Amino acid sequence: MMDEGATNSKPIHIWKTGGLESSKDILANEKPLELSINIGGESKVLGMLLRTPGDDEDLSLGWLLGESVIHSIEQVMSISIEKNQVEIELDGNKIKLSDIASRSFTINSSCGLCGRENLDGLVIPNRLSLSSDKWVKPEILTKLPSNLSNSQKHFEITGGLHASAIFDEKGELIDVKEDIGRHNALDKLIGSRLKLERLPAERQILMLSGRIGYELVQKAAFAGMPVVAGLGAPSTMAVEAARSAGLTLVGFLKEDKFNVYCGAWRIM
Amino acid sequence: MMDEGATNSKPIHIWKTGGLESSKDILANEKPLELSINIGGESKVLGMLLRTPGDDEDLSLGWLLGESVIHSIEQVMSISIEKNQVEIELDGNKIKLSDIASRSFTINSSCGLCGRENLDGLVIPNRLSLSSDKWVKPEILTKLPSNLSNSQKHFEITGGLHASAIFDEKGELIDVKEDIGRHNALDKLIGSRLKLERLPAERQILMLSGRIGYELVQKAAFAGMPVVAGLGAPSTMAVEAARSAGLTLVGFLKEDKFNVYCGAWRIM
Repeated sequence: MMDEGATNSKPIHIWKTGGLESSKDILANEKPLELSINIGGESKVLGMLLRTPGDDEDLSLGWLLGESVIHSIEQVMSISIEKNQVEIELDGNKIKLSDIASRSFTINSSCGLCGRENLDGLVIPNRLSLSSDKWVKPEILTKLPSNLSNSQKHFEITGGLHASAIFDEKGELIDVKEDIGRHNALDKLIGSRLKLERLPAERQILMLSGRIGYELVQKAAFAGMPVVAGLGAPSTMAVEAARSAGLTLVGFLKEDKFNVYCGAWRIM
Repeated sequence: MMDEGATNSKPIHIWKTGGLESSKDILANEKPLELSINIGGESKVLGMLLRTPGDDEDLSLGWLLGESVIHSIEQVMSISIEKNQVEIELDGNKIKLSDIASRSFTINSSCGLCGRENLDGLVIPNRLSLSSDKWVKPEILTKLPSNLSNSQKHFEITGGLHASAIFDEKGELIDVKEDIGRHNALDKLIGSRLKLERLPAERQILMLSGRIGYELVQKAAFAGMPVVAGLGAPSTMAVEAARSAGLTLVGFLKEDKFNVYCGAWRIM
């Protein structure tokens, strides 16, 4: 079962001045997960996801929401998970397999453009109008990096896991998920909030452990998360997507400083 | 044209204790690239790639090699690039469109499982037998992190670009490529070496700026790169793939220390 957890111990050699020594290292686990949907008894494999095992149900739900396959948890009838395979049964009254069958999906550890075969497929979500007054306190934002690192279970021991966390407006941790893929970590978080019917995330702050790419902003917008903050740099397309979706985007978040790329009007 | 380069300047707000100030920040550029192949006049869009503009020809060639669509530069007849669209003409005597048409590709900034719809599609490359004596000097490896950071043009100003570099056995830089996606950076490097007919990379060391996932090891193995070193942690599947492909895998590479995950027999 060790092999199915978030981490895995491997024999290694460590070199320090002087020579190689045998040792052990704990690594972030990475395994493929096959994701299928079932509508009215008809099954379709949507693709494969390379992920850190754990929270597979949340991951699958979050991915389906981010891909616009589902829009609410009410469309989901049941979820069955068997060793590295997940099948999600959807309500045939609400979703037609023919709508989905025409799309081509490929899923991986850091994807957000899956199934889009040309430039027209790039989706900039509609403008969010939620939590749109001035409610984000800078002194709360600057606490989030340490709150995030205190909440990560596995990063310290592996050095290889990304985290996505959601905080309330007072900076209290609501939930955190980890994965070797930054997009998986966010899908897990979004799937978990979707399942609990806690989306959109009114007056909550999404905090990302790394750089902020376009796909992460797109997922946050589909999930209704008004503020996206990250320890790293955003890309140009991430800024454009955040602006177009009406999000507040904060990068290079540190204890005493941060950059606001758009939506500064939410910040007190 | 600024918008088509590796970086882009955006107006931002900076918060420091005291309040928000208007400023500017230079961001890593991210744009979609549509990739098509043409065999005997018939064209097929393989998919879309979210990348940092620049080295698009190398990126496309490296991606095709990593996906096993091509195996040598001799299969490539011509390459035409127009604003965010690239078409690669392949030799119909050597490649059939029908072999490729049956595959489904999706490309993005951090992918390596593209076009594989189920677990059977995971490819562990054949064992490499190149440069298989004891030739890697630890004192050369430990110099690579600073050699790499000295070679990165854009990282320092954006904080958001990954790099892939290839060094000779004396630690001299042969080539370096940057991209917002770590897989793109490696595809660009591999495509460039392929074009120059310098693959396999005998007695050369691939150096990666970040964590080492399965897909990066797979690409290195297809390109014939015997030693993969990175500043960050490898995943479990990366170690398994490297071992099965006969590569030497070095992680957490620092000035005075590194971990060897497999292939320690190449290290002096």
